[in-house]
Amino acid sequence: MNPTDMFTEVLELDASDPLARFRGRFQLRTGLIYLDGNSLGALPKATPGRIAEVVAQEWGEGLITSWLGAEWSTAPARIGDKLAVLLGANPGEIISTDSTSVNIFKALTAALSLRPDRSTILSEQTNFPTDVYMMQGIEAFSDGRVKALTVAPEQVIDALDESVAVLLLTQVHYKSGRVRDMAEITRRAHDVGALVVWDLSHSAGAIDVDLNGANADFAIGCGYKFLNGGPGAPAYLFAAKRHQTATPVLSGWFGHARPFSFEEDYDPAPGIDRFLCGTPPVLGLAALETGVDLLLEANMADVRRKSLRLGDLFMQLMEPLCDRYGFSLVSERDPAARGSQVAYAHPQGYQIVQALKEYDVVADFRAPDVLRFGLTPLYLRYRDIVATVERLTEVCALEAWNKPEYQRRAAVT
Amino acid sequence: MNPTDMFTEVLELDASDPLARFRGRFQLRTGLIYLDGNSLGALPKATPGRIAEVVAQEWGEGLITSWLGAEWSTAPARIGDKLAVLLGANPGEIISTDSTSVNIFKALTAALSLRPDRSTILSEQTNFPTDVYMMQGIEAFSDGRVKALTVAPEQVIDALDESVAVLLLTQVHYKSGRVRDMAEITRRAHDVGALVVWDLSHSAGAIDVDLNGANADFAIGCGYKFLNGGPGAPAYLFAAKRHQTATPVLSGWFGHARPFSFEEDYDPAPGIDRFLCGTPPVLGLAALETGVDLLLEANMADVRRKSLRLGDLFMQLMEPLCDRYGFSLVSERDPAARGSQVAYAHPQGYQIVQALKEYDVVADFRAPDVLRFGLTPLYLRYRDIVATVERLTEVCALEAWNKPEYQRRAAVT
Repeated sequence: MNPTDMFTEVLELDASDPLARFRGRFQLRTGLIYLDGNSLGALPKATPGRIAEVVAQEWGEGLITSWLGAEWSTAPARIGDKLAVLLGANPGEIISTDSTSVNIFKALTAALSLRPDRSTILSEQTNFPTDVYMMQGIEAFSDGRVKALTVAPEQVIDALDESVAVLLLTQVHYKSGRVRDMAEITRRAHDVGALVVWDLSHSAGAIDVDLNGANADFAIGCGYKFLNGGPGAPAYLFAAKRHQTATPVLSGWFGHARPFSFEEDYDPAPGIDRFLCGTPPVLGLAALETGVDLLLEANMADVRRKSLRLGDLFMQLMEPLCDRYGFSLVSERDPAARGSQVAYAHPQGYQIVQALKEYDVVADFRAPDVLRFGLTPLYLRYRDIVATVERLTEVCALEAWNKPEYQRRAAVT
Repeated sequence: MNPTDMFTEVLELDASDPLARFRGRFQLRTGLIYLDGNSLGALPKATPGRIAEVVAQEWGEGLITSWLGAEWSTAPARIGDKLAVLLGANPGEIISTDSTSVNIFKALTAALSLRPDRSTILSEQTNFPTDVYMMQGIEAFSDGRVKALTVAPEQVIDALDESVAVLLLTQVHYKSGRVRDMAEITRRAHDVGALVVWDLSHSAGAIDVDLNGANADFAIGCGYKFLNGGPGAPAYLFAAKRHQTATPVLSGWFGHARPFSFEEDYDPAPGIDRFLCGTPPVLGLAALETGVDLLLEANMADVRRKSLRLGDLFMQLMEPLCDRYGFSLVSERDPAARGSQVAYAHPQGYQIVQALKEYDVVADFRAPDVLRFGLTPLYLRYRDIVATVERLTEVCALEAWNKPEYQRRAAVT
């Protein structure tokens, strides 16, 4: 296909895109191609107004009465119920509060309490670091009772045995984007009596997730990626109804059955609210809710379909660069095994990501050598993929990565 | 003194108040008397603009680059250093992130790790519930290794023995406002080899705190009371330099020495940053920083002096109501033992607090029978105290609390 035909086809894809109307709902600077929405999602245009309202009216005018009057106190469960629509859960199975790391701790310790005769938390090497770090913290604190075990990604199923209390896996791998089969792995874990905690940080808002369809036990995930909840947004925790008997280790007052009775002894709330801990982060929750509301307007099947097409187009256009400049595909080609990103390895990966910024393309680098291109169907166009590969070609042709200013330390992403 | 003379004197107090200029820095509706700043501090006028900037510019325009470009990643330590000025700590001894409850867990487990041969976490009955609940969660998870023990407030010192790993106390009691002697109690705890975690939720921004002067070990506290950080604001954690060797149980990636190297094993950051856990809540931190900045403009000796004078005036004016309507003082008269609030018990306490709202006075109720009047010297005037007692007198004279609409369930405060 000649370049003109190809570009015509891409413009037609954009013209017929059922999600095209969403791009205008985000604040995006003209010219910028933002391929890092899986690190920090873009700003919904509705968010500044909503936050201003929470600050000036609900806090400034309503003051303390807004805990009930503006429904701050029920925001974690209300947002959880909205997330449940995206994630195949029921109302009353998800709450939003605290960070992903803290929610990992809650989910793992809850699972351990449901398997008191077992000692192992299993995960895979190369899982997102905080997942494994939180396991290691539990192991260290347990004084020998709990063992944090990581095995090679392909050995996870074989490592499932009756010593395993809980398996912690990320559905979509943060670096490669590889998708795990949630239903099958959950079934295999249940076969040996183990529970599973799924990390949905790179799934929610990007791919179809069906927690109850997969008979999932627990899940947690991040609010600031595809959910567009803002920097450091509150995370969320799913606990299947049948597991809402577990007594939380992080037994803070907001998880109490009667927090405002100021009772002396902890008595966990009957439902998902027991997995709240301290006072919920109201400003962060308001931003997250605005992002989730926007996503709920979209059809998730459309989102997934466009995500895969964007990735297919990216890989197709990258083929000449792989041959000529030494990129190698890290992501899976198989659509069923590919999340909402495309990743390549390249020895100068870090420098190339830096150089792309000069071309107004924001991608992401993950040590040691991975360039990660996040695909966010709500605000990315097919033509942006074409422009990205064109600019990447120029970076490579000029060997722009050799410039000394691209040798700096990696940014926080 | 006749009422006119008294009111003239009060107006003079307001006229000569060195903190009077701060009231205009807060958004406060005309007519409202807000005596609940120790539940949720009022909105600084600078906050809406700052939050709008973080949302629209830093997030909306800067996107992922703002982690370094807008210094999001160092906000927890930067705000911690500002809090250190208020709390008698050194730079590098405080970070701000997560909730108070989560920080209690961090501090207690860090202290336990420094006293591995001891088993008891000691606190007092009637401590703020979440403090005790967090102890109980640690006990439950420890499988018998850790014991959560609460004793009557006056028995705390006697209960200090060599089984105690850590004592958890609140410096200013949430209900009565009683002030604990931080230096003396810390010394007594150290005498038996125990560590102390101080809860400063009702201290910070209200009374003089000198953590290092008291040789404190750990402290935590709330951002949304006298610090005016907004609803569900991030809390903070102090760890004395000498204790920054403790390995955190909540070992999340932001506490890692090299979070963006994505290493497989947890290696805690060398300093206070190890007590970070997940990604910091950027919006909440921005609001908190604005509140802390405002407080740093004030002289804390002036704040404390005015707080006590407001309380003295309140108690003086309340004396006739104690005789006539059955209020009894819960707070201490002794200024050294009194925080920034005055509390009274009354059998109809809940209903009276509800009735006061009709008079545009917001106070607080704490079960079973305590009316709590928070004194926030930055935005409260002496004349507000006079007006409060006048309106309270009317409520009592009319027995307004008998109205059926005041029998509702207590609001979240």
